Amino acid sequence: MEQLARIVTKTPLLTGTSVDAKREELRRYFHQTCDLYEALFDCLSGDEAFYIRAEPLRHPLIFYFGHTAVFFINKLMLGRYVTERLDERLESMFAIGVDEMSWDDLDSAHYDWPTVAQTRSYRRRVRQRVDEVISQMPLSLPITPDSPAWVVLMGIEHERIHLETSSVIMRMLPLQYLRPHPLWTACPDTGPAPANGLLAVAGDSLTLGKPADANTYGWDNEYGRKTVEIQPFRVARYLVSNGEFLAFVEAGGYRRPELWTEEGARWLAYSKATMPRFWCRHHGEYYQRNLLQQVPLPHDWPVEVNYLEAKAFCHWKAEQSGTFVRLPTEAEWTLLRQRLKQDQPDWLRAPGNVNLEHYASPCPVNRFEVDGIYDLLGNVWQWTETPIDGFPGFEVHPLYDDFSTPTFDGRHNVFKGGSWISTGNEATRHSRYAFRRHFFQHAGFRYVESDSDEVPVEPVNSYETDELVAQYLEFHYGAQYFGVANYPVACVDTLLALIPDLNKARALDLGCSVGRASLELARTFAQVDGIDFSARFIQHGFQLKETGQTRYAIPAEGELVEFREASLVDLGYDGLEHRVNFVQGDACNLKPCFTGYDLIFCGNLIDRLYDPALFLGQVHERLNEGGYLVLTSPYTWLTQYTPKEKWLGGIKINGENFTTLDGLKCILDCRFELVDVLDLPLVIRETRRKFQHTIAEMTVWKLK
Amino acid sequence: MEQLARIVTKTPLLTGTSVDAKREELRRYFHQTCDLYEALFDCLSGDEAFYIRAEPLRHPLIFYFGHTAVFFINKLMLGRYVTERLDERLESMFAIGVDEMSWDDLDSAHYDWPTVAQTRSYRRRVRQRVDEVISQMPLSLPITPDSPAWVVLMGIEHERIHLETSSVIMRMLPLQYLRPHPLWTACPDTGPAPANGLLAVAGDSLTLGKPADANTYGWDNEYGRKTVEIQPFRVARYLVSNGEFLAFVEAGGYRRPELWTEEGARWLAYSKATMPRFWCRHHGEYYQRNLLQQVPLPHDWPVEVNYLEAKAFCHWKAEQSGTFVRLPTEAEWTLLRQRLKQDQPDWLRAPGNVNLEHYASPCPVNRFEVDGIYDLLGNVWQWTETPIDGFPGFEVHPLYDDFSTPTFDGRHNVFKGGSWISTGNEATRHSRYAFRRHFFQHAGFRYVESDSDEVPVEPVNSYETDELVAQYLEFHYGAQYFGVANYPVACVDTLLALIPDLNKARALDLGCSVGRASLELARTFAQVDGIDFSARFIQHGFQLKETGQTRYAIPAEGELVEFREASLVDLGYDGLEHRVNFVQGDACNLKPCFTGYDLIFCGNLIDRLYDPALFLGQVHERLNEGGYLVLTSPYTWLTQYTPKEKWLGGIKINGENFTTLDGLKCILDCRFELVDVLDLPLVIRETRRKFQHTIAEMTVWKLK
Repeated sequence: MEQLARIVTKTPLLTGTSVDAKREELRRYFHQTCDLYEALFDCLSGDEAFYIRAEPLRHPLIFYFGHTAVFFINKLMLGRYVTERLDERLESMFAIGVDEMSWDDLDSAHYDWPTVAQTRSYRRRVRQRVDEVISQMPLSLPITPDSPAWVVLMGIEHERIHLETSSVIMRMLPLQYLRPHPLWTACPDTGPAPANGLLAVAGDSLTLGKPADANTYGWDNEYGRKTVEIQPFRVARYLVSNGEFLAFVEAGGYRRPELWTEEGARWLAYSKATMPRFWCRHHGEYYQRNLLQQVPLPHDWPVEVNYLEAKAFCHWKAEQSGTFVRLPTEAEWTLLRQRLKQDQPDWLRAPGNVNLEHYASPCPVNRFEVDGIYDLLGNVWQWTETPIDGFPGFEVHPLYDDFSTPTFDGRHNVFKGGSWISTGNEATRHSRYAFRRHFFQHAGFRYVESDSDEVPVEPVNSYETDELVAQYLEFHYGAQYFGVANYPVACVDTLLALIPDLNKARALDLGCSVGRASLELARTFAQVDGIDFSARFIQHGFQLKETGQTRYAIPAEGELVEFREASLVDLGYDGLEHRVNFVQGDACNLKPCFTGYDLIFCGNLIDRLYDPALFLGQVHERLNEGGYLVLTSPYTWLTQYTPKEKWLGGIKINGENFTTLDGLKCILDCRFELVDVLDLPLVIRETRRKFQHTIAEMTVWKLK
Repeated sequence: MEQLARIVTKTPLLTGTSVDAKREELRRYFHQTCDLYEALFDCLSGDEAFYIRAEPLRHPLIFYFGHTAVFFINKLMLGRYVTERLDERLESMFAIGVDEMSWDDLDSAHYDWPTVAQTRSYRRRVRQRVDEVISQMPLSLPITPDSPAWVVLMGIEHERIHLETSSVIMRMLPLQYLRPHPLWTACPDTGPAPANGLLAVAGDSLTLGKPADANTYGWDNEYGRKTVEIQPFRVARYLVSNGEFLAFVEAGGYRRPELWTEEGARWLAYSKATMPRFWCRHHGEYYQRNLLQQVPLPHDWPVEVNYLEAKAFCHWKAEQSGTFVRLPTEAEWTLLRQRLKQDQPDWLRAPGNVNLEHYASPCPVNRFEVDGIYDLLGNVWQWTETPIDGFPGFEVHPLYDDFSTPTFDGRHNVFKGGSWISTGNEATRHSRYAFRRHFFQHAGFRYVESDSDEVPVEPVNSYETDELVAQYLEFHYGAQYFGVANYPVACVDTLLALIPDLNKARALDLGCSVGRASLELARTFAQVDGIDFSARFIQHGFQLKETGQTRYAIPAEGELVEFREASLVDLGYDGLEHRVNFVQGDACNLKPCFTGYDLIFCGNLIDRLYDPALFLGQVHERLNEGGYLVLTSPYTWLTQYTPKEKWLGGIKINGENFTTLDGLKCILDCRFELVDVLDLPLVIRETRRKFQHTIAEMTVWKLK
C-alpha cells in the first residue's frame, strides 16, 4: 500500500500560468505513467509469460507492452509533430492487431513478436523521443485539442486505459506466469455480504457531457451536452456483491435462458458459462481469481460480470420481488454521482476504491458510503442500460477518429465510475467507456427498481454509413461546395419568391429524402408533411425531429471517412419540428389522407418514380384551390428506377426528340398553368475531391 | 413523256432577291411535289393495293402515303413553327414504324391503318397547313438551315426521297395491284447489250463535300470538306448491263459463294437468290419487272442489283481478266462526274436519265455519253466501295439528327448519281445516299480496274456511342462547363509554368485516354508518346492523328444524344500530329523502348492502375537526368480498378489515416524531390444537366 501510494498520480490540469511548469508537469505525468505501466508488467514471472494467449481472442501481453509506446509515435507522426519513425517494423506490428473498439475478432495473422528486451529497449527510445517532444513542442495554456500537448496527453491516457485492460488479461493468465509484487497488493479484507436494500431517488433533470472548456483532458465521447429528465427510482445501496449474486447462481440462473435477454441467451449457449468469469469452484467451494492470486470467494466484494449476466440477475431479482428491476441508465448513474462533489484531480484522497489510491483489487462493497449509498464511484465499473452514443455536439478528434465512433452501433453499453485500477482520465467524473455487452472488465453493477418496465434509453444515433444515405445527408445538411447554395433551401426560397399568392397553411414535400426541404418549409407553412418511399432516408428526418440531431460518415478518400452531425438547433429549426410530419409513402399510391395542400413540392422526384405519369395525372386531387405544384429534376432517367416505357421524356416519340419538359406539359397542361421554368444548381459530395454537379430544372404549376 | 415532262421540277435556289417570289416558288415546288407523289400512288389499281405487304420487312404503301405528310407536321411542331397537331393518331401511326435508315427490321406491332380516303383527306389538310406556313413564315434570303423555309424544303425533299422508295416498293407489288398510268411510261427502247470496255482515268486530287454556302438545299451528310488523292484507274464505259450481268448468272455466279464477300455469301445463303431481284425466268426466258409491267429482259438496260451482287460480279470479272476489278470509290465516282459541268437545277435538260426528265424507267446504257463514258449520272444509282461517313465538318441538323448518323456504322455503302426517278435534291451532284449493302433500290453499278487489290476507302469515322468513351471525348475535346478550363490543357499549362528548367525534347503522356494532353504537349515537346491501357480510348487519339477528326455522341437527356466532332484543325493541332505517337500499353508493364523522357505526365492515372506502387517504383528508370514526373489524381480508389491491398492511400495503416499523398511520398521520396502540390478542377459531362465536378491534386516530382 505504501509503495503503491507513492505513485498515485492525477491527470494534469489543462490550465495554468507557467508554460515551463506545465511542461515539467506533463513530463512527470508521462514518466510516471510509463513507470506504472512497466511496473504492472513486472508481475509477469518471466519473458515466457509475455507470449501466452490468456484469451484466444486477444493478443499476448507483449503486444500491449509495445502498443502503448508505438501509439505515441504513430499519433505524433500523424500530427506531424515528429517526422521520423523509430522502428518501422515494431510500429506496424504493435500498432493495431485488434479491432480495439469491437474488442473481438483478432486477426489470424502470424505474428513474429520481438523479444521482451527488444520491446523494453524500444519503450526506452520512445520515452526519450516523447520527452524531447515535451521539451520542444510549442506550448500555450490552456492546452486545447489542437495542441501537441493534447497528443502527448492522448498517448498518456491511452496507456492508462491499457494499464487497466492489461490487468484484466493478466487476471486470465495461469498463476504460474505471475509473481507477487509489492506494488500490486490486493485488499486483505473479506467478510459476509451485507444485505442489500433500496434507496428512493427523486426525479430530476440534468445535463450530461463534459463542458468544452473543462480543465482536464477528455476523450471525444465525453463532450457535447444532453439534457435529460429522470423519473424517480429506487436504487440498490450496494453494488451487487459476490454473495448476493451467488444466490442467483445457486438458484440455477445460468441454467434458465428465459431469465436472459435474447442476446444473453445466445451468449450463454455459446459460452456455456455457469458462474461469473473470475469465479471457479473446487470441491464444492467457490474461489475468485484476482490479479495475482486466487482466494476463497470474497462474499462482500462486488461481483464482476458482463452486462448480459447483470441483466439476467435483474430479471431473476424481479421475478423474486414482483417489481421492475434493471440497471441504472447512464443518466441515473450520473444523478447518483452528483451526490459526490469531488472529482479527480481535485480530491485529496479518492472517495472510493479508484485511481490505485486504496487497493490493487476490489474491496468490500460497504467501505465507501455517501448518504446511505456505497461505491458511487470506483471498486468496479458499473454497467448501465445505455448503449453508448455521442452527446449532441459530439466531434471526433482528427488524430483519433475511431476512438469512439465504431462503438456508436447499439451493441456497446456504457459503464461508469471506474475500477480500483482506473487512473488518470478514467478516474474522472465524465469518463465513460463502452464495451460489447458480453465483454469482461473489472466491472459489476448496481440495480434499480423503477415504476415501469420501460427502460428510459434512446436508440443510438449511430453514424449513417450507407454511402447513398450519407451523401444525401451531407447534401441536405452539410457544407456548401463550389459556392452553390444549399439545394433544398434554395428550392424553397425560390418557389416562395416566385409564388406571391401562395396560401401557407399546408405543404407536402413529396420525395423528401432526409427531410431538409420539409424543415425549411416549416418556417413558412403551419403544417408540412414530408413523405419518402425509402425508410432508409426518411428515418433521418424523423430522427432529427425526434432527437434533434442525426449523424453520418461521408467518404473522404478511399476508405477514410469524415464524421458529421446535423442538429436542429444549429440549423435554426428548433421549435419548428412539431410542424413537420415525416411519413413513409409511395408517391404513385399515396394514401387518401394526404390531401388539402396549398403546395406540393417534389424535389428531384419524378425521375425516380416507377410511374411518373400515374403520379402526375392524380396529383391535382391533393391540392387546394389555387394550390401550386413545384417540380425540380435533372431528368436523369434510369431504367433501374423507371421502366423505359414510363419515362416522361428524354425519348424519341414518333421518331422525334421529346424532352421531359415536353412530357410534363403534355400531362399537366389540362389541369395546371405553367407559371415558371428555371434552372437550379446542386452539388452532391461523393468524396473529398469528387462531386456530382447538377443543374436541375424547376417548373412551377398553378392549379387551374 | 409529254405529260411527265409537264411536271418536271427543279429544286429551288436558296438565294434570290425577292422574298415574295421565293415564297411563291417554294409554294409551287411544294404543291408540285405533293401532286407528283400522289400521281405515283394513282398507279395503284384500288384501295386494296395500299395495304399489301409487297416486302414482309416493309410497311404497306398506305404508310408511305401518309408518312410524307405527317413528316411536315412533325418537323414543323419540333421547330415550333406550328403549335397544334392535325391528327394525333395519324401523326403517331405514320411517323416512323421503320428504322428508316437501317431499312430493316420492321416492328411487329399491329397497325390499324386508316382508310385511303381518310389518308387523302389528311394529306389535303397538311397541304393547307403547310401552304399557310409558307405564306406566314418569316423569310429572308438566302434561306439558311435555321430558317422555317429550310424545314419546308426538308419536308419536300423528304417526300421526293419517298417518291423513289415507294416506286421501289410498287415494283415489288404483284402487277394485279397496279394499272398503267400515262405519267409513268417506261422507256420503250431495248436491244442487245453493248460490249463494255475500259477507259483510262488519270490520278487527281479533289475535294468532296457540298460547300456550306451552296445555293440549293442539302442533307447534313452532303456538307463538310474532304480532300482526297486519287490514283489512276480504268473505268467501264457503260454501267453493267443486264446482258453483261447475265454472263455472270449463267456462269453460275450465284452458285459460287467463293466469288462473294463474306457478307455477300451470308446473304446469298439466306436469300437463296439465283438472279437479280427484279428478274424472273419463265420457260427458259428471262424477264424484268419494271414499275408497272414485266418485260423480256432488256439486255442493254443497266442491271439492278445490291452491292453484294455487284461485288461478286467484280470478283468473277477479275477471275476472267486476271486484273483487279472492283467498284469505284465515292471519290473516283466524283472525279468521273466532274466531266459533266452541269447540275440540277441549272441544266436545261438533264444530261442523263434522271429527274423524270426522260423516262419512267431505266433506259439503255449507251444513251447518254460524255467523252466515251456513259451514264455519268442517272439511269440507276451507282454503288460505290465507300461506306458512308460524314465529311470533316459534318453537323447534324437539329430537327433531323438521325437522318444520317445511324448510317455512319460501316454497314451502309454510298451510292451516287440518281436514278430515272431521282428528283429534287436527289438529282443534284452532291446528293449521296447510303443503304445496307444487301438492299435493293433502282441501283446498279459500273466497275473499275485498278493497279492493286487495295480498295482506297478509309474506315468509317463512326460516332463513338460507348458512354464512357464519349464522356472522355467531350472531357478532352468538348465544351467547358461551370467556367472550368479544359483539364488536359490546364494540366499541361500548369506543369509548364511550374517547371522552368524543363528540357523539352521528349514527353510521355501515360494514361493518355483519348489523347488531348499528348496533343497539347506536342506544342512544346519535339516528341510525345501517348500511351493508354484501353484501346477503346486510345483509338480516338489515333484517329484524330490519322484522319484529323473523331466523332462521338453524348447523352443529353434520357436516350437523347448530341453529336460532336473533334477536329485537329479546329483545336489548332494541325501540323503537330506527327510529333505524337499513340500506343496501347500497360503502365505497370511498359515496354523497355519507352524511356529517355524529360517529362512523364500521368493524368488521373494512378488510381486506375492495378498496381500503382509497382509503376511508381520503376518510373524513374524512364526519365532523363533532371526529368520530371507529374501526377494528377482525385484519388478515387475503387476495387474494380485497384485491389484494396494495392491502394496507395485512403486507407488505415496501423490503425491511422493514411492519405494517397502520404503514400506517394513514401514511394517516391527516395528518387524524387516533391517540387509542388496543387489542386486542379475538372468537369466531366454525364448528361446535359449532370456533371462530375472533381478537384484533382497535381504533384510535381523532380528526379534526384
